[in-house]
Amino acid sequence: MEKLRFGIVGMGVQGSLYASILAGKALPHFGTLPQPENCVLTAVSSRSPETAEKAAALGVSYFADWHKMVESDVCDAVIITVPHYLHHEVAIFAMEHGKHVLCEKPAGVRASDVRKMLDARGDRALGMILNQRTNPLFRKLNAIVASGEMGQLRRSNWICNSWWRPDSYYASNAWRGTWCGEGGGVVVNQLPHQLDLWLCLTGMPTQLYCLAKEGAWRDIGVENDVTVTTRYPGGATGVLVSCTHDPLGTDRLELDFDQGKIVVEGSKKATVYRFCQPEQVMNQTMDHMQMAYLAATPEKLYTVEELTAQQGFGTAYTEIFENFAEHVISGAPLIADGEDGLRQVRLANAIQLSGWENAPVAVPCDEAQYDAELQKRMDEEG
Amino acid sequence: MEKLRFGIVGMGVQGSLYASILAGKALPHFGTLPQPENCVLTAVSSRSPETAEKAAALGVSYFADWHKMVESDVCDAVIITVPHYLHHEVAIFAMEHGKHVLCEKPAGVRASDVRKMLDARGDRALGMILNQRTNPLFRKLNAIVASGEMGQLRRSNWICNSWWRPDSYYASNAWRGTWCGEGGGVVVNQLPHQLDLWLCLTGMPTQLYCLAKEGAWRDIGVENDVTVTTRYPGGATGVLVSCTHDPLGTDRLELDFDQGKIVVEGSKKATVYRFCQPEQVMNQTMDHMQMAYLAATPEKLYTVEELTAQQGFGTAYTEIFENFAEHVISGAPLIADGEDGLRQVRLANAIQLSGWENAPVAVPCDEAQYDAELQKRMDEEG
Repeated sequence: MEKLRFGIVGMGVQGSLYASILAGKALPHFGTLPQPENCVLTAVSSRSPETAEKAAALGVSYFADWHKMVESDVCDAVIITVPHYLHHEVAIFAMEHGKHVLCEKPAGVRASDVRKMLDARGDRALGMILNQRTNPLFRKLNAIVASGEMGQLRRSNWICNSWWRPDSYYASNAWRGTWCGEGGGVVVNQLPHQLDLWLCLTGMPTQLYCLAKEGAWRDIGVENDVTVTTRYPGGATGVLVSCTHDPLGTDRLELDFDQGKIVVEGSKKATVYRFCQPEQVMNQTMDHMQMAYLAATPEKLYTVEELTAQQGFGTAYTEIFENFAEHVISGAPLIADGEDGLRQVRLANAIQLSGWENAPVAVPCDEAQYDAELQKRMDEEG
Repeated sequence: MEKLRFGIVGMGVQGSLYASILAGKALPHFGTLPQPENCVLTAVSSRSPETAEKAAALGVSYFADWHKMVESDVCDAVIITVPHYLHHEVAIFAMEHGKHVLCEKPAGVRASDVRKMLDARGDRALGMILNQRTNPLFRKLNAIVASGEMGQLRRSNWICNSWWRPDSYYASNAWRGTWCGEGGGVVVNQLPHQLDLWLCLTGMPTQLYCLAKEGAWRDIGVENDVTVTTRYPGGATGVLVSCTHDPLGTDRLELDFDQGKIVVEGSKKATVYRFCQPEQVMNQTMDHMQMAYLAATPEKLYTVEELTAQQGFGTAYTEIFENFAEHVISGAPLIADGEDGLRQVRLANAIQLSGWENAPVAVPCDEAQYDAELQKRMDEEG
């Protein structure tokens, strides 16, 4: 089997995890995860000297300077897990040197940077590690929504507080929870997956408002409590709630359509209600007391389908790596490509900008305004 | 037993219902509801001539002109169920003529009008028919929150779409779903109960933003799809979602505190989670992977109490009437008084104004600005 040769840029938590998966090595707590069949790890790069030992243990080449790895012929593709601000810089250099790029989420902090990365692609592959897209439940839900059977979206509510992070987490690395280090808080670090999954199900809003709180019950200066209200082209509305201080972590997504409703609990279980007739017909033919009586005989109102799907930790990454290699080797469509990364960052930028302005903003928002407002916060943080 | 003598002003749907309850008459679909023991219905007033027949059937006096009923000695108290805009006018006239007043929700459309009503009270009683306050579940929850055992509020999310109303409902009366007739849509007509219950649990926000849609999938010009984002004095945030076009009517309230979480489903069932230690302590002593492992042994993280309470239709009204009479007769505290009515209208006004401006507003909002913006809409509607 033809195998794609990977080099990893950045050997922090994620880089080390990906190295172990690609090399088929055991992980603390999780054992050995399925090794991608069409991938081979050939090199890792990191300024930190301990990485040389890790490389030796993995039996791969070590580069203290990632430029050298990219310039060499040791790999066909690079996985980028350096801090978000550097994603585009590494990706552009790598693609200019003929390497394919698989980039950690988010694609970047600034949409303006991500656009530069996309412009530099040429004929190189650019994939995103938006691994939660492989969640079988969301795949089924995307298929149901895309089939059109649920009709038009009217509403989407996602309470996604399942990102509890204590102060020790923020203190564990100087870049965490800072404007200069990662460009924000929950919107930039934890939420990208949900923003992406949400976009798959609802499409891009045209306008949003975000109430953002910075340092909510945490010793940080970036946002870690957000309420985002969205307005979509077809007339639908939505809300997304997230924070990092809820130890009980509600994760509940509701999608209301004119022909049904979907409720997803914990991203693991979904209830799909299909109306016996479109809401437009009920509106024309029923009065509201009839509707109240139907609560006693719900089968006259809708059918119910329960969907469950749970995915083991790590199999998602394996699937992302295999898909990327298959894309490069035989042209299979990517699970998540550069445009998907840009779309997610555009939504994140608009959320942050609205929070800073405490006012609704258009989506995508003004890139120059976002960049200037972010820079202000970076300068103040020092 | 001393009984308070009631006259009803306005004999539409609510007025006729209250008359039947006070007179111990059977209702269509619901049979006979418990009759308040310390109340007696003595008169009803309405311009519509059929009310004379209703009065005869009930064995009470009939007045075509409510002023005459108020000026007479036929009753000690009036129940006001005329259109919202007229509440303060009737209430003020009644109180000036020595009558006690029990007013249908909302207390009025404009907070400025409600204030006038409160200013005219003198030593008269002014109660509000905020009957959902008698829901035993919410009484328990209010007691739990008021006891302080849950600690400080951090977050409140209420999806309250359980107000499906078809076009035939809006067409059933010329005043329904109009600015001139009732001063708005879901915020003014359906939501007052939830706004009031929410205020009891969270207190008044200092700022809010509302994304309001007018005529969402309905042939009306007023708001029937709202998303309200709130900010509270203690640093908590919240969201309230409501619409009149969801036939499946989600009703889910979540309250996050630093020492627990409460989830209320359908206003009938609540799950109360009490953390084994305050979140502040978890934040100081645990890392986020430890927290993830605790998902397998949740009893180390929290205790769970399930509360259920269902109330029959109509017993709430009986309780409101009995309480009001007891208040007048022996000084018992009111379940809901004029200040409660004003508070609820102030929140509603801020929600509508924010929706009109598509911008965050302070709560309470500027009364003159609200009144002027509402008048604009009334003038345009013609």
